[in-house]
Amino acid sequence: MSEEFDLPDDRGHCHDFHLTVPEGDDRERRVCRACGFVDYVNPKIIVGAVVSHEGRILLVRRAIPPRTGFWTIPAGYMEEGESVAEGAAREVHEEAGAHIAIDALLAVYSIPRISQVQMIHRAILTRPDFAPGIESLEARLFAYDEIPWADLAFPSVHWALRDWLRVQGRADFAPFGNPPGDDGRRLPSF
Amino acid sequence: MSEEFDLPDDRGHCHDFHLTVPEGDDRERRVCRACGFVDYVNPKIIVGAVVSHEGRILLVRRAIPPRTGFWTIPAGYMEEGESVAEGAAREVHEEAGAHIAIDALLAVYSIPRISQVQMIHRAILTRPDFAPGIESLEARLFAYDEIPWADLAFPSVHWALRDWLRVQGRADFAPFGNPPGDDGRRLPSF
Repeated sequence: MSEEFDLPDDRGHCHDFHLTVPEGDDRERRVCRACGFVDYVNPKIIVGAVVSHEGRILLVRRAIPPRTGFWTIPAGYMEEGESVAEGAAREVHEEAGAHIAIDALLAVYSIPRISQVQMIHRAILTRPDFAPGIESLEARLFAYDEIPWADLAFPSVHWALRDWLRVQGRADFAPFGNPPGDDGRRLPSF
Repeated sequence: MSEEFDLPDDRGHCHDFHLTVPEGDDRERRVCRACGFVDYVNPKIIVGAVVSHEGRILLVRRAIPPRTGFWTIPAGYMEEGESVAEGAAREVHEEAGAHIAIDALLAVYSIPRISQVQMIHRAILTRPDFAPGIESLEARLFAYDEIPWADLAFPSVHWALRDWLRVQGRADFAPFGNPPGDDGRRLPSF
């Protein structure tokens, strides 16, 4: 996850962009003066999971910016050609070397400031082994009361872990959204 | 919604793209030989709603390709700077001139073939007036047994309308996903 990054302003130098409203559109887009290319920018989907194993929760410690060294649930950008759940399982495998079974969509968080929609699932390990991937310094199971709250990487990691607890043992529930009024701009204080 | 369209292969002529694996990445991307720009392509989010008013359902008839002349629920591409629910309300207003209150996330459909994730909400009209927008030929309320099933634009419109019926009167439910084994490639036959 990279909530601390804004979208890059520079998307390559070859196009000669200016801001204009394309025909049939209703808002300004970056349009290339030379070739007419319209740089439509849509929100990006982050897929991830709160993964538990015998009641403990799998977290990874980030090896890359932003928030290097802080703990997060495994999550990352959804790729083309996969479903939301497939993407979440792929990210968990990439970042924590773990194999999971997803049983619910836990939450859909919108972070408009950085144009992210985060689709966080609830899952369990299907095999007890795991290991940090290339983007992780560590992967570890934490009992809920051992979670390093002050060292979590992003606000939405807090949200997901708290929401996970609220539906423990429940099978059919509506996914959580952002905490009311919270757009993910700040970490909770301690 | 534009499920019938594949993503355009031509995203502007200024870049001189070749396929290569960028440093630190694990899959081929389009990278510009001249300026180094990486054309990351992520799935697009479609936001929309099954909107009802006194038991009848709001559909719009498409004025634009793909599937011009066919009926759909109001839906379209999520924009930057909005939440998922805000985007759905905006699309309903743009396509059907309607004001809505959303009460649930009805479904999350993944259509990997065209890299779409569709987030379809359940909503009601908050005012009885509505009118087709510029992308719609008509906007109309249909009793459920009057829905023009054979003239619906996309497979996922079928899914959403059927899923809507399955949770009528229910408040707290997990959003539906694709029908098992269905990747949205074909319309149901009649």
